[in-house]
Amino acid sequence: MLEPGQIADLTEQLDTDDAVAIIEDLEEHEQKAVLAEMEPEERAAVESALTYEEETAGRIMQRDMVAVPEHMNIGDLIDYLRKNDDLPTEFWEIYVVDPAHRPVGTCQLSWILRAARDIAVSDVMKREQTLIPVDMDQEEVALRFQKYNLISAAVVNEDGRLIGMITVDDILHIVEDEASEDVLLLSGAGEGDINEPIRDSYKARVRWLVANLATALVASFVISIFGGAIEQMVALAILMPIVASIGGNAGTQTMAVSVRALAMNELTRSNTRRIIGREFRIALLNGGTIAVLVGIGTALVFSNPMLGGVIAVAMLINIVIAGFAGIFVPVMLDRMDQDPALASSVFVTMITDTMGFLAFLSLAVGSGLVSF
Amino acid sequence: MLEPGQIADLTEQLDTDDAVAIIEDLEEHEQKAVLAEMEPEERAAVESALTYEEETAGRIMQRDMVAVPEHMNIGDLIDYLRKNDDLPTEFWEIYVVDPAHRPVGTCQLSWILRAARDIAVSDVMKREQTLIPVDMDQEEVALRFQKYNLISAAVVNEDGRLIGMITVDDILHIVEDEASEDVLLLSGAGEGDINEPIRDSYKARVRWLVANLATALVASFVISIFGGAIEQMVALAILMPIVASIGGNAGTQTMAVSVRALAMNELTRSNTRRIIGREFRIALLNGGTIAVLVGIGTALVFSNPMLGGVIAVAMLINIVIAGFAGIFVPVMLDRMDQDPALASSVFVTMITDTMGFLAFLSLAVGSGLVSF
Repeated sequence: MLEPGQIADLTEQLDTDDAVAIIEDLEEHEQKAVLAEMEPEERAAVESALTYEEETAGRIMQRDMVAVPEHMNIGDLIDYLRKNDDLPTEFWEIYVVDPAHRPVGTCQLSWILRAARDIAVSDVMKREQTLIPVDMDQEEVALRFQKYNLISAAVVNEDGRLIGMITVDDILHIVEDEASEDVLLLSGAGEGDINEPIRDSYKARVRWLVANLATALVASFVISIFGGAIEQMVALAILMPIVASIGGNAGTQTMAVSVRALAMNELTRSNTRRIIGREFRIALLNGGTIAVLVGIGTALVFSNPMLGGVIAVAMLINIVIAGFAGIFVPVMLDRMDQDPALASSVFVTMITDTMGFLAFLSLAVGSGLVSF
Repeated sequence: MLEPGQIADLTEQLDTDDAVAIIEDLEEHEQKAVLAEMEPEERAAVESALTYEEETAGRIMQRDMVAVPEHMNIGDLIDYLRKNDDLPTEFWEIYVVDPAHRPVGTCQLSWILRAARDIAVSDVMKREQTLIPVDMDQEEVALRFQKYNLISAAVVNEDGRLIGMITVDDILHIVEDEASEDVLLLSGAGEGDINEPIRDSYKARVRWLVANLATALVASFVISIFGGAIEQMVALAILMPIVASIGGNAGTQTMAVSVRALAMNELTRSNTRRIIGREFRIALLNGGTIAVLVGIGTALVFSNPMLGGVIAVAMLINIVIAGFAGIFVPVMLDRMDQDPALASSVFVTMITDTMGFLAFLSLAVGSGLVSF
């Protein structure tokens, strides 16, 4: 491990956002030791960034940027840029601010380069800007960048004053991380980093396996109620995993679609009802297809048309339930301000397993195939 | 729908890469009709882009960019930019080329703005560049952008000549799409767009449900072999879905980690063996924990220590198998040049279901709990 002084020296070379990214991952006592070794100015910048919540604009923004008053003309601006050594290492746009330091426009460097020296900066700048509130969630920030094809964006505080900027290269990593996070959360694999300590992987994963164990017990309890029925007809034990497995798969499909749509802000309160209707119709089509296949196959293999009918109806019921569960569970988690990717799998699988066994075995009893 | 002439007018307003993105999604006869209506120059640009394979650099690059000779100085360059109306609407870097039009350096606009007029462009440019071959896969291009924090990159043909540029805003969409694709492919939900026609969603999804049906039959066949054992002890039917379900979950965890690591180029031939070793140890820890919990619980609930021992051992075996399957299946698909996210789920679930039932039921027979 590096000494605090060495980490401090290294982070001082970086833009604030990169320095913060390194320091926020340290233990609290290490953070303090590193900050104590930093130059006062850098230290103040990092400390101020750390006052914002993790995964917000305040954490990912850099404080260094180029901001100029409206009345400057292109020639003044170029001279200012040439003379001023204290500018950030990389910038792609400059921000034009009013006397209260509130952004009034954004100017791409290419527009500056292509304009004559005597033109006012305010004539070249774009007035419609996407301003990022400092407490905005980073996922939301990334969506703005994608929606408006931004290369950089001004970050403002509660008073609307310019306090930093976010550049697209940081957004690229956030988009990658958030999307990967969904894959890994949905599978219950935690961080899912192949280089993290085995201990961390074990802790992250075993938690979900234990949760899965609890939900599997619910399904097993349902089966145990029908123990007598299974003793009468062992075909029920042979066939029931098929109903649960395909229901689980159908639920996972709908769930993945819902989770991505929620992450992309495409599934909103206003269209939830429409999407549920859409998934219901897909579930009827899927369920109908699978029901016919499984029903006919079962009737033939076991020479038992009633058993075929029972599994077909159970399959259809379970796939429709899976469709609802696949959308309902992520939407509910989202409304409860939980990450919809986090616990969706466990709940959806529990619902499809339990309802699959319940529908199949109770229909077997209800149809008179076996007695209770 | 718009008329071909209207689409042609619209796409002519766009950068080539955006025009291509629209036109490549049309049916072939629509493509021809639209191209026929375009101005010769735009048409040539789009047609040339369409000669490159889908999802390669050639498709996503724009042809318009700023390229200047090495001997130019900053003043000449600024005058050139001011006078030339034919430049792309947005650019963030300029490329410096040799007489054969091969890139020799890249120059950020901020460096140009900050340098004095008499300095040579070649003194300001960065000589180490990340050149993108025109046939490079877009996922690979996106990884380069992430790795080197690029804002734009020069695209070169087989002769090393500069033929286009790719900007980071396009990469943002690719990163998002590729990562989302993984979530949706893993779940078997196809495109997973909540706005696509129901017919398309049905076709994409039912295919995987049918595939899942086929694999579920394999598992059912294994159960049917042990029909006699289940008739003797109905507890086997009650418990066997637990073994399969948790094995499936453990397999999905490993699979998600492997698929993401493959997508990020972190899982390579050189470290596959190490990662398999890592997953094996995690599987032993997870399997051991779950085996103890399930074994003790079963022994107590069914007052049958032997049954507890059987399910514990079966659980451990299945979680270890799940760990291997979760890494082996995606890696094999990848080596066969298939997208590792595409069919992994179906295979991994088949393996964990089948091996779960097989291990549990055959151990029950082998231990003498039931006779075959």
